[in-house]
Amino acid sequence: MTPDPASAPARTWSRRRVLQAGAGALTGAGLGWSAAAVALPVEDSTDRTDRTPGALPGARVVEFHGPHQAGVSTPPPAHLSLLGLDLRRGVGAAGLARLMRLLSDDAARLTRGRPALADTEPELAFTPAALTVTFGFGPRIFDEILGGAVDGAKPLPPFATDALEKQWRQTDLAVQICADDPTTVAHARRMLLKDATGLARPRWIQNGFRDAYGMRPDGTTMRNLMGQVDGTANPAATDPDFAELVWSRRPGLTGGTFLVLRRIRVELETWDQVDRAGREAAVGRRLDNGAPLTGRDEHDVPDFAATDALGLPVIDPASHIARARSANPAQRFLRRGYNYCVPDPSRPTGEDSGLVFVAFAADVERQFVPVQRRLAELDRLNQWITTIGSAVYAVPPGCAEGEFVGQALLGMRR
Amino acid sequence: MTPDPASAPARTWSRRRVLQAGAGALTGAGLGWSAAAVALPVEDSTDRTDRTPGALPGARVVEFHGPHQAGVSTPPPAHLSLLGLDLRRGVGAAGLARLMRLLSDDAARLTRGRPALADTEPELAFTPAALTVTFGFGPRIFDEILGGAVDGAKPLPPFATDALEKQWRQTDLAVQICADDPTTVAHARRMLLKDATGLARPRWIQNGFRDAYGMRPDGTTMRNLMGQVDGTANPAATDPDFAELVWSRRPGLTGGTFLVLRRIRVELETWDQVDRAGREAAVGRRLDNGAPLTGRDEHDVPDFAATDALGLPVIDPASHIARARSANPAQRFLRRGYNYCVPDPSRPTGEDSGLVFVAFAADVERQFVPVQRRLAELDRLNQWITTIGSAVYAVPPGCAEGEFVGQALLGMRR
Repeated sequence: MTPDPASAPARTWSRRRVLQAGAGALTGAGLGWSAAAVALPVEDSTDRTDRTPGALPGARVVEFHGPHQAGVSTPPPAHLSLLGLDLRRGVGAAGLARLMRLLSDDAARLTRGRPALADTEPELAFTPAALTVTFGFGPRIFDEILGGAVDGAKPLPPFATDALEKQWRQTDLAVQICADDPTTVAHARRMLLKDATGLARPRWIQNGFRDAYGMRPDGTTMRNLMGQVDGTANPAATDPDFAELVWSRRPGLTGGTFLVLRRIRVELETWDQVDRAGREAAVGRRLDNGAPLTGRDEHDVPDFAATDALGLPVIDPASHIARARSANPAQRFLRRGYNYCVPDPSRPTGEDSGLVFVAFAADVERQFVPVQRRLAELDRLNQWITTIGSAVYAVPPGCAEGEFVGQALLGMRR
Repeated sequence: MTPDPASAPARTWSRRRVLQAGAGALTGAGLGWSAAAVALPVEDSTDRTDRTPGALPGARVVEFHGPHQAGVSTPPPAHLSLLGLDLRRGVGAAGLARLMRLLSDDAARLTRGRPALADTEPELAFTPAALTVTFGFGPRIFDEILGGAVDGAKPLPPFATDALEKQWRQTDLAVQICADDPTTVAHARRMLLKDATGLARPRWIQNGFRDAYGMRPDGTTMRNLMGQVDGTANPAATDPDFAELVWSRRPGLTGGTFLVLRRIRVELETWDQVDRAGREAAVGRRLDNGAPLTGRDEHDVPDFAATDALGLPVIDPASHIARARSANPAQRFLRRGYNYCVPDPSRPTGEDSGLVFVAFAADVERQFVPVQRRLAELDRLNQWITTIGSAVYAVPPGCAEGEFVGQALLGMRR
């Protein structure tokens, strides 16, 4: 096992300002102060990218340490690799702590553009390209390893539109790797998988992509493979309620969040048979710029009451945006999805396409479930999309230098 | 089927200068003049990228039309998708011509950042990101459809180190799609696959990656997933013998080339057990900067005669560079390979990694086969690499606006 390089935890967040709570918020001796650091609303660290003037985009470092894990509020780079792992039989709290110490150390180094300890291909580490590594704990960790001490990740209820495939099932752990360079992602993934292998077994790997760095104007919302602007109505990190929507305040998870993963297959073959007007009506937005059918620009607020000359609603009440939008502002969450497109010889054009839908919410039951229930009940898009994988993970708060992700949490077990 | 938009072929190469040969080189009426245009050595069009000042890198256009197909001498962008297709039963010369007219038209539009005809997701076409589409014809096209009229693609001889898997077998056609944006690649691939589907069936899709655009200093040689600098000894487009090494002068294929595809699996698990010195000895190059073990910089010429204090050769005669290098300068070719790394639950770390080795040569038998034969006989790297897929395609010369790739060739059939 890799030894911990810093025996005394360093008490600084590199490059970032942090508001510290009073000592009374400390949850226990020896747990460091990450829980304390997030006990008060913390200045959001959305853009934690190091921008040395003149440096190449490949040199961008997103700091791993902090009150929140990186890879949530940080801007999504081009490539995603999401790993689902199960702890090996007999691995308990001590083993999980060893694993998380090891993987956190790997992540801290790799995200800075430094080789992991005993990195077998150190030169592949030198281009961090905004690499982030984000860890999530599945329901079994809370039920069996923490003995119910922490109110953590819970399975989603079933939805009528799900057609879940066992290959994409819930796992004990999720590791979300994101960066703007595919070789960087491949190397980080391999180092993490290798270091995990003694204690955990990979069940699936879900790779995805968005726009490559610098290819489109800054601030362009990504498009999915259906051609739609996807992610317009997403809380911005600058929104006053961003912290409330995203960061948990539950004991043990304060400063953490929850990751909802849905693998959504898109039936592009039948979607492509629909004409442009039919597609726009199904979504409720224009295809060219993503504006709601009642508006002109992408970020115009949809007017669900607007009617046309015949008195019919301009935005179909069964359209995706009408069904997804709630009158209750608490029913929002942060989406950070990626397109997927993988070879599949069994399908007409030889590939399976869709979305690795990743959402973050402080409270899945309160924010995500009602929306998904409404969509499962009625959404014109359901004709072309099917959820084939589903999982939920609690994303523990971030850790300080010398600590590991989940350290405080594991100290709370019964 | 999509009608041809230009009934009279336009006789200009957009944005590029072309040396025209005399009319005597024309191969036949109605075949346009692409064959003529390449009957003389043509100024190499390696960098055919449109660089409008201030434009985003996503706006870069690599011109599709020209005496050579794009995607050979043009600099390799970040992403590769190589499609292997077989013509459907009963599709002959007329069907192949229809298919190539359709796909050439798609490619000409998409590479300019314009939607394909009847593009179902036109907005996904607006960021060409240096997109190239390159077409290759497999041996069966020459034997059965052209009736042996043209000396075209021939299968490679078997090599002792091959462990070919049927899933990666030779196909009738190859379509190489490259661009710096993964969404651009996905959209182009889907349009081409959809338009091909009536006449051809996809057998495999091989995706790969190199460094993302702008992440590393210009001129950095890519690294493969073994951590090696890969592609140092590659003829540069500015080399005086580049045209001779790459562009065919065979009747019907003048200005074309041959594509050798080898899917090379790397056994990273055992490679990672080898220490740094052992790895450098196996390759003959330093891992840190790719310099030969007798040199200091990546591009230093290896000194195979140099010996150490004990009188032993500094570069092992069984090392990869010693075995790959030939005293015969004609035994060189252009490599344009991409890393691959795909989920594979049957493998220890859950993924299968390697190289989609793509090479271009004017004469495969003369340039590639002797080198590969030597490597199959002895190469210390063979311990960790296995060729699991192999195919050869003739890449017809480029076409002019209003023509299609393979047009002159199909006019030559017996």
